[in-house]
Amino acid sequence: MLDEALLSINQVTLMQQWSLRQAIEGLTRHGLRGISIWRDKLHEMPLEEAVRLVGDYGMTVSGLCFAGLITSPDRAEAAKARDEVRRAIDEAAALKARCLVFVAGGVDPRDKDIRSARGRALDGLASLVPHARAAGVRLGLEPLHPMICATRSVLSTIKLANEWCDALAAEDAVGIAVDTYAVWWDPELEAGIARAGKRICAFHVSDWLPDTQDLRLDRGMMGDGVIDIPAIRRMVEAAGYTGQREVEIFSARNWWKRDADEVIRVIRERYQTAV
Amino acid sequence: MLDEALLSINQVTLMQQWSLRQAIEGLTRHGLRGISIWRDKLHEMPLEEAVRLVGDYGMTVSGLCFAGLITSPDRAEAAKARDEVRRAIDEAAALKARCLVFVAGGVDPRDKDIRSARGRALDGLASLVPHARAAGVRLGLEPLHPMICATRSVLSTIKLANEWCDALAAEDAVGIAVDTYAVWWDPELEAGIARAGKRICAFHVSDWLPDTQDLRLDRGMMGDGVIDIPAIRRMVEAAGYTGQREVEIFSARNWWKRDADEVIRVIRERYQTAV
Repeated sequence: MLDEALLSINQVTLMQQWSLRQAIEGLTRHGLRGISIWRDKLHEMPLEEAVRLVGDYGMTVSGLCFAGLITSPDRAEAAKARDEVRRAIDEAAALKARCLVFVAGGVDPRDKDIRSARGRALDGLASLVPHARAAGVRLGLEPLHPMICATRSVLSTIKLANEWCDALAAEDAVGIAVDTYAVWWDPELEAGIARAGKRICAFHVSDWLPDTQDLRLDRGMMGDGVIDIPAIRRMVEAAGYTGQREVEIFSARNWWKRDADEVIRVIRERYQTAV
Repeated sequence: MLDEALLSINQVTLMQQWSLRQAIEGLTRHGLRGISIWRDKLHEMPLEEAVRLVGDYGMTVSGLCFAGLITSPDRAEAAKARDEVRRAIDEAAALKARCLVFVAGGVDPRDKDIRSARGRALDGLASLVPHARAAGVRLGLEPLHPMICATRSVLSTIKLANEWCDALAAEDAVGIAVDTYAVWWDPELEAGIARAGKRICAFHVSDWLPDTQDLRLDRGMMGDGVIDIPAIRRMVEAAGYTGQREVEIFSARNWWKRDADEVIRVIRERYQTAV
């Protein structure tokens, strides 16, 4: 049996059903205390109110999702994007989130230059480290699936995330978020996770559906796809990760349409059988 | 100016418009002699007739697409799949194709074991090498995009293709097909291509549309997306590849709906400006 105290549910999994207040109350009804907060939802109320809510209900925030998208080749745009990351860092600090999930940003059609986009992301990150460090927040660099490389993240593998961490040399302020959905296909997954070791600051789970119909919003419930999630969990835990296992399912055609309490019941069941 | 003698058009680009005969006649009208033949189209006529047609029109066949899908955990299914590859090898030999594009196969929901699927693909390949060698056909191992890893190919990177080539030790019978669409996101692209060197037996081009709407059938025309195709072409050619540049566009919502002659006109133009 996996410990339910380490089960966290990313709010995006119930994006269409619940506000932040409803999510916290709902998870509590099911005896769960782990949540990852989605920034769009967070902004529905004053930050102070969210912080109070999280405290009153004794929630443990596995992550704040997300900030980043700093790869613009336009200097003013990139500076504005970095300022937004700083705001998110402050929010993550207030919420005592285990990490702020960092999504690099994509390839700009204006220059079609993935190598430069990666360079800008790394340089931008370096300039954000002092703010994260001062706030006591860890940025969780999340490699995303190569299918959203153009639009969301030029950080496509754990290996590259490790290289960025090496370059940043800021282990206190920068870690790696491992998401099964994003990395399961990687031939070097095991080596990448082992090398990441204590850098791993978040572990997200969902499954890959063989009949996937959308590049972002068609993730599967653990057990419904072809990812051997327990094998990846064991790799992550063998590398030294002892934190929460966070369920993050974007599912426009299935789980977003279901009753939230039913979704949570299925997650709790699958947490034991398929995580 | 790129030499049009090295421009090849994969039949799948005109999948909805033309039969094999129409494609050969149509390309000839535009002064083109390079074609990659799609097996479903090939099977519309007796092989001998196709061979005669290719010879009569003086076409150079950059590839026969495709064979493989040999990752089944069921022994009988896998054996049947390998037999089908042998048939394709014989077809490729008859057509004097520069290579037979090899697509490994996906992850079986029955075992959800990507590592075993990769092992079975490599073992299966090893058992196919003697037939390919005897037929004088080169198998072009094609890494496919990780987004079709579950259904089509557990061979997801050029690095893994190089490792398989190392293991097979059969440079005469096994090469690598580099497809810009499949590999453009790879942080180790340049190193992988350089290491592949003379193994590269095919170079496929198409572009990644930022608003991609389908995991397989929404590729873009060169120049319409965010891939720096000329940069990748230069890498491939610097590695020693001197063969055809093959345009392979699956496009259910755009190019498959257009007049075939218009598609070819656009390809010829983009070949000069975006390849």
